[in-house]
Amino acid sequence: MERVEHRACFGGWQDVYQHASATLGCVMRFAIYLPPQAGHTKVPVLYWLSGLTCSEQNFITKAGAQRYAAEHGIAIVCPDTSPRGDAVADAEGYDLGKGAGFYVNATQAPWAAHYQMHDYVAHELPAVIEANFAVTSARAISGHSMGGHGALTLALRNPGLYRSVSAFSPIVAPMQVPWGQKAFAAYLGDDVTTWAQYDACALIKAAAEKLPILIDQGEADEFLDGQLKPWLLKGAADASGYPVCLRMQPGHDHSYYFIASFIGEHIAHHAFNLKSV
Amino acid sequence: MERVEHRACFGGWQDVYQHASATLGCVMRFAIYLPPQAGHTKVPVLYWLSGLTCSEQNFITKAGAQRYAAEHGIAIVCPDTSPRGDAVADAEGYDLGKGAGFYVNATQAPWAAHYQMHDYVAHELPAVIEANFAVTSARAISGHSMGGHGALTLALRNPGLYRSVSAFSPIVAPMQVPWGQKAFAAYLGDDVTTWAQYDACALIKAAAEKLPILIDQGEADEFLDGQLKPWLLKGAADASGYPVCLRMQPGHDHSYYFIASFIGEHIAHHAFNLKSV
Repeated sequence: MERVEHRACFGGWQDVYQHASATLGCVMRFAIYLPPQAGHTKVPVLYWLSGLTCSEQNFITKAGAQRYAAEHGIAIVCPDTSPRGDAVADAEGYDLGKGAGFYVNATQAPWAAHYQMHDYVAHELPAVIEANFAVTSARAISGHSMGGHGALTLALRNPGLYRSVSAFSPIVAPMQVPWGQKAFAAYLGDDVTTWAQYDACALIKAAAEKLPILIDQGEADEFLDGQLKPWLLKGAADASGYPVCLRMQPGHDHSYYFIASFIGEHIAHHAFNLKSV
Repeated sequence: MERVEHRACFGGWQDVYQHASATLGCVMRFAIYLPPQAGHTKVPVLYWLSGLTCSEQNFITKAGAQRYAAEHGIAIVCPDTSPRGDAVADAEGYDLGKGAGFYVNATQAPWAAHYQMHDYVAHELPAVIEANFAVTSARAISGHSMGGHGALTLALRNPGLYRSVSAFSPIVAPMQVPWGQKAFAAYLGDDVTTWAQYDACALIKAAAEKLPILIDQGEADEFLDGQLKPWLLKGAADASGYPVCLRMQPGHDHSYYFIASFIGEHIAHHAFNLKSV
């Protein structure tokens, strides 16, 4: 593992590392914010999953989250959004291939060789983080858009892995919208029972663990009606008695200005859950 | 004037406009953050000047300033760093020409035709802002690196124009460092008496107005010893009884992670001065 960026930030350090991922079969980068408290004690970790086209850089440069992480004493780990490198399959368009891993374990050629983002984020990355940094095994997860889908499905599929979950503008029903249908057909093939294992609306109906979910969604989001449809998750959650707090935010779009405006409240939500268990 | 971006942010709006600048003879973009208070009253304005290679975008996407501007009820206006467009002269390298206007009024060909950034920022832009938005004529100014030089020299050259001034990692002595010497030779020619009109260390010795200056400087800044040398300004200020608070910040570099870590304190500094006069 090699540190490739190291920057003082709000009394802690905003670092970027690269490492050889066994799960993905390629070199991956991740960002980690270590708050000042990590200098003298172990801190819990929030995993942040970014959206289509993003890398480990977008959240750390644009969300303004470090201030809140420093206040609450929480580390933030941001993986990349897909496997990377010349050996990794790619496709035309921003919504499939590199930058668009959708946090699934691909079963279809040519994707299956490297696109195992679910297992990377759920298993390999936490093991790397917990072996190498001053962190506890208390974990939370959040993300934006495709990464909101990732956060919700990772939490719903893996009881006990996280103590807290939230999302911004998540793709809640990938089986029912164009982004998800295109990606799942490519990565997972034709069997929709496999698709359902990565669909928050499907998973929430049978969830064994009911972590309260906080979702913020901009009312002026250009993808709201075509790709996101958060009311589908709210409806499924209400029907099965799962607690989802969906907040529709007037005027806000799909951008990082939206995330920046509410990331402080999400980090407070995670800090409460991470420290109260 | 045309609005080209409009994004909800911390209860206010992060907008970007373009307009035809008479001073610069080209179309210019500027960003303006309008805090929630601007919906029902006039608010004071902080002008932010960015550094080499930047446009109106860098500060608004990376500094995390909107939260503090919303708390204090201050608008923030960010101009571009040079004239733009196909008709505007440019040069090889990142430190001369487009993206590197140095906030001077050029006197030399081919630069003089458009590179009049001092007058644009000091005169035309405030007139545009104060005629078109819910703002008062209470102005503050700050900036980073080349923009820190711009903030200091604009404040020192124009008594009464601003009520408050600060800088991050400013070029305080352009006459004595490579960035400044290259730019001033090109834009201003060989007469160093002209150079001295844009050199904070030279200007501070004869300043008619003594606005307290707040400067933050990272100790790990890769440009500290070669281009910035803030101790030169501190020495000149001390010798002439001008109040400069220079804070050396351990571990911090030249990046926006540094600016983000301390922009809240700068905005509080400006808010105090803008509202107490």
